[in-house]
Amino acid sequence: MAKAPRGRRPGAPDTRAAILGAAREAFAAKGFSGTTIRGIASAAGVDAALVHHYFRTKDDLFLAALELPVDPREVLASAVEGPLEEAGVRFLRAFLSVWDDPSHRPALLGLARGLLDPAGQQLLSGGFLPVVLLPLGTALGLDQPELRMPLVASQVIGLIIVRYLLAVEPVASMPTEQVVAAFGPTLQRYLTGDLA
Amino acid sequence: MAKAPRGRRPGAPDTRAAILGAAREAFAAKGFSGTTIRGIASAAGVDAALVHHYFRTKDDLFLAALELPVDPREVLASAVEGPLEEAGVRFLRAFLSVWDDPSHRPALLGLARGLLDPAGQQLLSGGFLPVVLLPLGTALGLDQPELRMPLVASQVIGLIIVRYLLAVEPVASMPTEQVVAAFGPTLQRYLTGDLA
Repeated sequence: MAKAPRGRRPGAPDTRAAILGAAREAFAAKGFSGTTIRGIASAAGVDAALVHHYFRTKDDLFLAALELPVDPREVLASAVEGPLEEAGVRFLRAFLSVWDDPSHRPALLGLARGLLDPAGQQLLSGGFLPVVLLPLGTALGLDQPELRMPLVASQVIGLIIVRYLLAVEPVASMPTEQVVAAFGPTLQRYLTGDLA
Repeated sequence: MAKAPRGRRPGAPDTRAAILGAAREAFAAKGFSGTTIRGIASAAGVDAALVHHYFRTKDDLFLAALELPVDPREVLASAVEGPLEEAGVRFLRAFLSVWDDPSHRPALLGLARGLLDPAGQQLLSGGFLPVVLLPLGTALGLDQPELRMPLVASQVIGLIIVRYLLAVEPVASMPTEQVVAAFGPTLQRYLTGDLA
């Protein structure tokens, strides 16, 4: 640390947990855009510089607060590398590489359930979209990412619910390649197709 | 009624409500296929003939237990009438005619939330699929309705969550025709397209 932060509990072992707790409450109540690092710091009783020290940016703090087993920005970054006309399949493969891994499943299912929780309604439009999906659409060079990425989200959420959360057959037991064949063209059309 | 049923409360005003309550518990616990009219009658303390008298079939009883504002079989029947290559759009228009009607919204949102409820996991695979979607796929003359209709369900569920439950923009405010243009081709491909 460059300098000692003001505020109480600057170096206590629970400082990081206190920041995360304050962040979860703030993001749930005010959404991503309505939340500030300064407000979280104040609620946690620490200096804003300490929040930055532990979590760098507001984007990073948002994702840390979700306690995801992986950083979705890193996982989905592979969708950007390659021909744009295959980005839908690459996106889907990156998604499945995490979700089809049973060791990640419990944490991810908890997150998915939270999506329909009244307190979790900010999770998608107030968090995942601006932090993960819109930057990805911009990195892909899409026209209208603000229209296209919510369409992508709609099919990915439906896939999560049918394949993992409700385990509806035959989708629940489909091999990865069959999921890619079934859903890949849908995502590709949402990313680059004619939607009018 | 042809004959007086055995069991208690044959004609009491709350008999119908007792049957519905027993049906809800049974469908939630055992799913559609694991539930019998006889078992529901027994749990409600009435004769099975009385259940048939009030609700005709198990399919009808399942839908009555959901307290839907409309019968989804009647709404979606219009998807069958017309060229198969436009069935996706007809399905979507029928769906939107109900969901875009604000008077139906509260009941439908309650149903959608129940989908992710642990007790409501049987709702889709144990109920909506066999009672509403698979018969529709069969009426359309699809090959592999048991594969195709769960794919349709995945996109429709994702649309419900993004447009109505989470109200993610711009999907939440899209005019009906724009929703049809964006999602219709997806449903059409799931109904009749190449998925391999």
